[in-house]
Amino acid sequence: MSLLVFGHKNPDTDSICSSLVMTNLKKELGIDAKACCLGELRKEALFVLDRFGVEAPELISSVGSDDKCCLVDHNEFGQSVDGLEDATIVEIVDHHKLGGMTTSAPLDMTLKTVGCTNTILFGMYKQNNVEITKAMAGLMLSAILSDTLIFRSPTTTQADIDAGKALAEIAGVDCEEYGMEMFKAGTSLDGYTVEEIVNMDFKPFEMGSKKIGIGQVMTLDIDSVMEKKDDFLNYINSTDYDMLLLAVTDIIKEGSYLIYKSPDEVISNAFNVEASQGVFVEGLVSRKKQLVPNLTPEVEKC
Amino acid sequence: MSLLVFGHKNPDTDSICSSLVMTNLKKELGIDAKACCLGELRKEALFVLDRFGVEAPELISSVGSDDKCCLVDHNEFGQSVDGLEDATIVEIVDHHKLGGMTTSAPLDMTLKTVGCTNTILFGMYKQNNVEITKAMAGLMLSAILSDTLIFRSPTTTQADIDAGKALAEIAGVDCEEYGMEMFKAGTSLDGYTVEEIVNMDFKPFEMGSKKIGIGQVMTLDIDSVMEKKDDFLNYINSTDYDMLLLAVTDIIKEGSYLIYKSPDEVISNAFNVEASQGVFVEGLVSRKKQLVPNLTPEVEKC
Repeated sequence: MSLLVFGHKNPDTDSICSSLVMTNLKKELGIDAKACCLGELRKEALFVLDRFGVEAPELISSVGSDDKCCLVDHNEFGQSVDGLEDATIVEIVDHHKLGGMTTSAPLDMTLKTVGCTNTILFGMYKQNNVEITKAMAGLMLSAILSDTLIFRSPTTTQADIDAGKALAEIAGVDCEEYGMEMFKAGTSLDGYTVEEIVNMDFKPFEMGSKKIGIGQVMTLDIDSVMEKKDDFLNYINSTDYDMLLLAVTDIIKEGSYLIYKSPDEVISNAFNVEASQGVFVEGLVSRKKQLVPNLTPEVEKC
Repeated sequence: MSLLVFGHKNPDTDSICSSLVMTNLKKELGIDAKACCLGELRKEALFVLDRFGVEAPELISSVGSDDKCCLVDHNEFGQSVDGLEDATIVEIVDHHKLGGMTTSAPLDMTLKTVGCTNTILFGMYKQNNVEITKAMAGLMLSAILSDTLIFRSPTTTQADIDAGKALAEIAGVDCEEYGMEMFKAGTSLDGYTVEEIVNMDFKPFEMGSKKIGIGQVMTLDIDSVMEKKDDFLNYINSTDYDMLLLAVTDIIKEGSYLIYKSPDEVISNAFNVEASQGVFVEGLVSRKKQLVPNLTPEVEKC
């Protein structure tokens, strides 16, 4: 019976790639293994698999006492496959805090304080002298760039950077260029109408006597939003809010582009910028902690 | 503040040596570290430290929220230092099953299904290109021989054997010869009287109408017992038991030497051997599962 290799529930790119990369490593070492996943793949992971021509892990929702499991990118029962308590856990590879699991027998376990599980798996390929194919390099690199926000996240370690650079060479891509392409695809707003995008994550507020609405969307697909700036403005202006602000947040640049129904003056004063439709506000990423508290006093002055 | 490196409570040779060997590795890698232990050293560990000229770890019984800890040879709060829940665990190296610990932050953790923690540590020295001194090799080897009963335990892996052989060369000892010397020292009965040894682990039984006593002592210091065979016999015969049997159990040879107050015939029939004082019975190691059930029908026949 195959060793079942699971990433965590609600899988991100690291979990999907870890499962596939670990399964390939096991096979190369002569162990029958199967890549499994615990939920639908997100856009980002779908882009990665398509780009490197690798099939998605199999969706398996529960295991039993006969099953042998390997966990990657998690080490908590609650995040893992149903029935795991009854199965045999033979190995865990992860970069998260210890999650309180118990087993009835010894196992192999590798946790490292690095930014991505695939950085650890990269080391395991090296240690076992297993060749890293272009496809596997692509998956590992994608996971590392995803988890570390292209080496920008504070969780990034030198090991992630070293692994990423070596893998980019094998995969034949540039880290920055490919990473941005992946994030754009992962946060693409293709297929959504202007109205859907504004209302995707929208909250109404009362500021003074005014009715204010703030929508926020996290994407790297900035260009496709800005191309439709006039459509967004037309829709926003057609609403019956006294003021409405759409923040298009770029997680890599760590800031937001603003499209708004509001006097320019309010925007300029609230965010300390020269306001214009589509203006970029550096450092502005949180609605709760920045958008609302900065806007409120300016709106109340009107 | 030093990284505190702890083996488990009631420390065996692996825990003591792991703590010292891991501490030395950290120091070689430029990290300030201190070897700690959670209890008195047993004879075996004392012999090892004396043999290789290494000082014992410091006895430290509790830690606090400012402490950074590394655990070796265990991964359960119950087996570890008091107050550990409040301290920061930065690393764990172990070969036991998962013990349900949680941490509030990621950490480095290496569990492997090998016979001894020091086999894992040996790999870490190699991986980090840290020189293994004769003293450190001696400690690692001792722990491996201790945990694997000189490679005889079913928990022994090829990795333990490979590490053991490489370390024996550095330490300048023969595995079998040195291992036996260590076990002899660890199970030495020096300083105990004949009466104390017989009564060390002694249980009385009623079999039929007879009053039977069985003492068992685990030791590899067989010679020093056999040298005093007549003294043991004199004492045993002086008791008012109808029958009294002392089993001197050799954990390496997996059998017991028998000294007894009993008709030879009973011993011969019970254990399928040609009875004589000091006879070795292969495979006889358990009082509960072998000595008592085998003796009972023979005694009842008398």
